[in-house]
Amino acid sequence: MAITAEEISRNHSLISGFIDSTLLKTDATEPDIIKLCKEAEKQRFRTVCVYPYYVPLCRAILSGSGVDVCTVIGFPSGMTLREAKVLEAEKAVEYGAQELDIVMNMGAAKSGNWTYVEDEIAEIVRRTPQALHKIIIETCYLTDKEKAVACAAVLASGGQMVKTSTGFGPCGAVVEDIKLIREAVGDKAGIKAAGGIKTFEQALAFIKAGADRIGTSSAMQMALYSL
Amino acid sequence: MAITAEEISRNHSLISGFIDSTLLKTDATEPDIIKLCKEAEKQRFRTVCVYPYYVPLCRAILSGSGVDVCTVIGFPSGMTLREAKVLEAEKAVEYGAQELDIVMNMGAAKSGNWTYVEDEIAEIVRRTPQALHKIIIETCYLTDKEKAVACAAVLASGGQMVKTSTGFGPCGAVVEDIKLIREAVGDKAGIKAAGGIKTFEQALAFIKAGADRIGTSSAMQMALYSL
Repeated sequence: MAITAEEISRNHSLISGFIDSTLLKTDATEPDIIKLCKEAEKQRFRTVCVYPYYVPLCRAILSGSGVDVCTVIGFPSGMTLREAKVLEAEKAVEYGAQELDIVMNMGAAKSGNWTYVEDEIAEIVRRTPQALHKIIIETCYLTDKEKAVACAAVLASGGQMVKTSTGFGPCGAVVEDIKLIREAVGDKAGIKAAGGIKTFEQALAFIKAGADRIGTSSAMQMALYSL
Repeated sequence: MAITAEEISRNHSLISGFIDSTLLKTDATEPDIIKLCKEAEKQRFRTVCVYPYYVPLCRAILSGSGVDVCTVIGFPSGMTLREAKVLEAEKAVEYGAQELDIVMNMGAAKSGNWTYVEDEIAEIVRRTPQALHKIIIETCYLTDKEKAVACAAVLASGGQMVKTSTGFGPCGAVVEDIKLIREAVGDKAGIKAAGGIKTFEQALAFIKAGADRIGTSSAMQMALYSL
């Protein structure tokens, strides 16, 4: 059974299982990544989320720890070539990533080429069947109608979760979008809220609204709150 | 003979040949890209600089125009897998890009793994011999010493130009860095100043300091100044 927001309210440490502890700073170094992994293991976060370059390092540290390795594909615009995104995903999985946070092609989406968006995600999903696929729809650039279309594309392409934001756009996750996404996907996909979520209270509000996963670069702050 | 800053001061329209007219907004649509290309052809800009996804469209519009197509590789962190960057570059050239603005692997650089940084660039250069390679060193994250090491890596790997910035970092090009880069590369590489350059006067200051190319999303503003 899934853990509820009420249970987390009573036992703060339960939030760890929802957290993708994220480090996507451009100047993140190997020592920073090692620290991220060690903290994740200690706090039993769900995953660490890093750039593909750091996947082998995280895998080496976290093997057998129970913490999975998540990486980002086509990040943060989704606007590279399909062939490059597919290979990036395949190689990331080969090097040890269990979860892929894939940015949908934002240019194609904003141009109304939803068939392209959907086909690309479907190809990545097909080529990496062993991974969990979260599709970043970058809500801040979408109208409410486009958000619903994006959710439909995720479902049709076989993505298992919808993720709100890269954290690199003009705004991040907002609670209203979680409700909108939940309405669009029903129980057919999970939801990851990410972008600007810094505190335990914020995370809990997103979980209450329906989020199954929280992406944050303030994971330790949330975990320490729970002590 | 190269055009000098003094000649541009006398004949403003000469600046067009220095300009990579850039559109890397996450929500850039096909109509936006078409407009970018048509303006570039009219103003005789050096290139348009777009995401890989839009390379085929730009190539179709600009064939025979004299305006080249530039795209970005590993943008903006440079921290994807080497295999993905190499394929991204190869396919971008196959689809019609003549110039590649390649972000060096910032995580490797900041971790001191300069051999990795250099080998990766060298492989991309080797696999796309027909392209012009500008290596983005993202100066805002580097110490002055690291900037010099990065320039040496560009020279050693066969990159033809050093580019200051992605425009996505906390700061963009600064005139002092152009002088520092010129000192590091001598006449063995060109310099592209990019990031936050919005006016004709700014562009001219960078060219005076030694820049051979200007990346800007305000190209039309610079061109109209020259009328």
